[in-house]
Amino acid sequence: MTTVKLWNDAEAEADPRVKAVFDDIRATRKSDFVNNFWRGLAGQPELLAATWNRLKAVMVAPGSLDPLTKELIYVAVSTANGCSYCVHSHTAAARAKGMTEDQYAEFLAVVGMAFQTNGLVTALQIPVDPAFDASTGAS
Amino acid sequence: MTTVKLWNDAEAEADPRVKAVFDDIRATRKSDFVNNFWRGLAGQPELLAATWNRLKAVMVAPGSLDPLTKELIYVAVSTANGCSYCVHSHTAAARAKGMTEDQYAEFLAVVGMAFQTNGLVTALQIPVDPAFDASTGAS
Amino acid sequence: MTTVKLWNDAEAEADPRVKAVFDDIRATRKSDFVNNFWRGLAGQPELLAATWNRLKAVMVAPGSLDPLTKELIYVAVSTANGCSYCVHSHTAAARAKGMTEDQYAEFLAVVGMAFQTNGLVTALQIPVDPAFDASTGAS
Amino acid sequence: MTTVKLWNDAEAEADPRVKAVFDDIRATRKSDFVNNFWRGLAGQPELLAATWNRLKAVMVAPGSLDPLTKELIYVAVSTANGCSYCVHSHTAAARAKGMTEDQYAEFLAVVGMAFQTNGLVTALQIPVDPAFDASTGAS
Amino acid sequence: MTTVKLWNDAEAEADPRVKAVFDDIRATRKSDFVNNFWRGLAGQPELLAATWNRLKAVMVAPGSLDPLTKELIYVAVSTANGCSYCVHSHTAAARAKGMTEDQYAEFLAVVGMAFQTNGLVTALQIPVDPAFDASTGAS
Amino acid sequence: MTTVKLWNDAEAEADPRVKAVFDDIRATRKSDFVNNFWRGLAGQPELLAATWNRLKAVMVAPGSLDPLTKELIYVAVSTANGCSYCVHSHTAAARAKGMTEDQYAEFLAVVGMAFQTNGLVTALQIPVDPAFDASTGAS
Repeated sequence: MTTVKLWNDAEAEADPRVKAVFDDIRATRKSDFVNNFWRGLAGQPELLAATWNRLKAVMVAPGSLDPLTKELIYVAVSTANGCSYCVHSHTAAARAKGMTEDQYAEFLAVVGMAFQTNGLVTALQIPVDPAFDASTGAS
Repeated sequence: MTTVKLWNDAEAEADPRVKAVFDDIRATRKSDFVNNFWRGLAGQPELLAATWNRLKAVMVAPGSLDPLTKELIYVAVSTANGCSYCVHSHTAAARAKGMTEDQYAEFLAVVGMAFQTNGLVTALQIPVDPAFDASTGAS
Repeated sequence: MTTVKLWNDAEAEADPRVKAVFDDIRATRKSDFVNNFWRGLAGQPELLAATWNRLKAVMVAPGSLDPLTKELIYVAVSTANGCSYCVHSHTAAARAKGMTEDQYAEFLAVVGMAFQTNGLVTALQIPVDPAFDASTGAS
Repeated sequence: MTTVKLWNDAEAEADPRVKAVFDDIRATRKSDFVNNFWRGLAGQPELLAATWNRLKAVMVAPGSLDPLTKELIYVAVSTANGCSYCVHSHTAAARAKGMTEDQYAEFLAVVGMAFQTNGLVTALQIPVDPAFDASTGAS
Repeated sequence: MTTVKLWNDAEAEADPRVKAVFDDIRATRKSDFVNNFWRGLAGQPELLAATWNRLKAVMVAPGSLDPLTKELIYVAVSTANGCSYCVHSHTAAARAKGMTEDQYAEFLAVVGMAFQTNGLVTALQIPVDPAFDASTGAS
Repeated sequence: MTTVKLWNDAEAEADPRVKAVFDDIRATRKSDFVNNFWRGLAGQPELLAATWNRLKAVMVAPGSLDPLTKELIYVAVSTANGCSYCVHSHTAAARAKGMTEDQYAEFLAVVGMAFQTNGLVTALQIPVDPAFDASTGAS
């Protein structure tokens, strides 16, 4: 169940603003597959375009972090935010970008460790050590 | 303010279970600095030892993810879990492990993007595409 | 799957405390439909009555915020808390109270923006500007 | 404490990309005040510009939701995401856009109610009523 | 910093609705101390009274869970919701109700374990075993 | 759907590291049932063993909190972290350890109350009372 209609290809084809985004998704990813997130956003064409354009700039354009690392960061955030869909889609993306099962096991271990210490630190209300402060620009 | 006492060096020195962990932290990190998290856990020596030993196994031992990537995953989880202390300590650790300001800018862009789509996906309640399912072991 | 039984109408009818609440829900909403939340709470009649009475006071009684605005606030909280059921039920309620698709698109854009800056601010650990302080009562 | 330097006006003035954004913030808001969030983002000029431009499009441009409603949605999300800075800055913005103390009291009551039922629903794992499904587009 | 004024005793004394609640807090707790939460809610007298009355019914009235267990549940929720104030106030309340340091150490170990498996389960998107379903009322 | 394969008994039997953990789960719990969480972790044998060993130490070994109280803390954390699977499995465990329906109703009331005040406190940004500070060790 969703709170919006998921647009099929015929519906997307009929709205030029949606068609333009779906075409760019397919061209950028070199695949005919358009996943449900974009089909759910299609009813809000301005938001659809803004979201896709920003995603392309952040996740697809080459930069100083490699594509797999970016996907792992994405899955980490999505896990802690409890976004089931995002965990699924970006874990699949991480595998598509070459994540090995050894790397995934290590990723999971780090996530488990971070959750554990997040809980302990919050329960204990530990004050930040002055050594960690970067506000003076000395970092 | 905290919910527990933060143990100083003299107090830690006086309890052999705490001293053993503090000594190992210093030896492992080749630094005299013991940050507040461990000082707050010192009142629970069993939990202190279990947490440090697991952290060392996950974060310090060599593996298939490089140390900087593991820190970025840690900061990503901590950010989404809203753990202020953990964000500070692991961002500092990422810098200590060589994170450049360009990499940090890109990390922040990915975090912002992940949060944004986490919110949209949850608001829209998008169903997971069958293509993302790995339960059959075909992944 | 749930952690409790969902009470059907016959079961609700047989317990006077549950019947009283279900009757009031139907009378207040001018509808025979009682959604699953109340059916799951029926096994805890005191909690059922307290929750419904407070919900009626907060969401149904007229006040200084219009009913649609209150539903949008409800969906916003539920989205960030990751409550799938609540997102569904209060998005449906917002539509029933007149939300247009243009308003929904704008709501989603605000939610996406808020998530994004929440993530960035938490990652950066930005200190609150003194100008935002209302503790002196001057606001 | 922060994880980045907060840029002062002289530093912002010296970097044309940062200066352009700060100038636009001041012109758009008709105020000389630039709050800490933008000063913390200034070290990442591309992210600074992208975030400000999107915020301006979503929050400042006229639309089908009034400016106060948008601020209340923003505070609601920020509260549930536990973003202290964002709660402060957008509560101040809501007051600047005319929020009365009666409206604020009602906003708080809705937030408290939403949190309460979010917790109950998640503890009970209530299944979504089919009546709330909008995936067929019939909504 | 807060988003509201914290009412001092003189101000509370001057508003009969606030005075009634503060008087009841003091009588119920057999202490002159009124903590900041109630002073911050005082500007919204209806919400102040509703919140206090419900808290008294849930946390103070005798029931089938002992007072310390109820405080530990409260701290557990507050930790996972990242509510710093609530962690502080209810950890103090747990100590006031007799929590030993051994019990606290064990509480922390359970919280750390729960966080860790919450993270792993969400990352792995584990489906609920049919054996855990209670919807048929057989539990 | 999951992000990993769930190992069946034949597969678990064939890997000595997985077999050892599954055997210990069955022996410890005096039941042939191995729930999906462990089947999903089986692809990461080191993480599987570390997680089970820690869970056994924290949740099974006798201590100063009784087993039911520990399960309630676990469910409380899992609810606030939005972990559907964990809520189901540990609510079932609480029932298996003797939780009565009266106790469950009271647990739910405390969870609802904690969520509600968490939301209000975060919206109001209430500062921690100095009386709650335990950092000096005087608590």
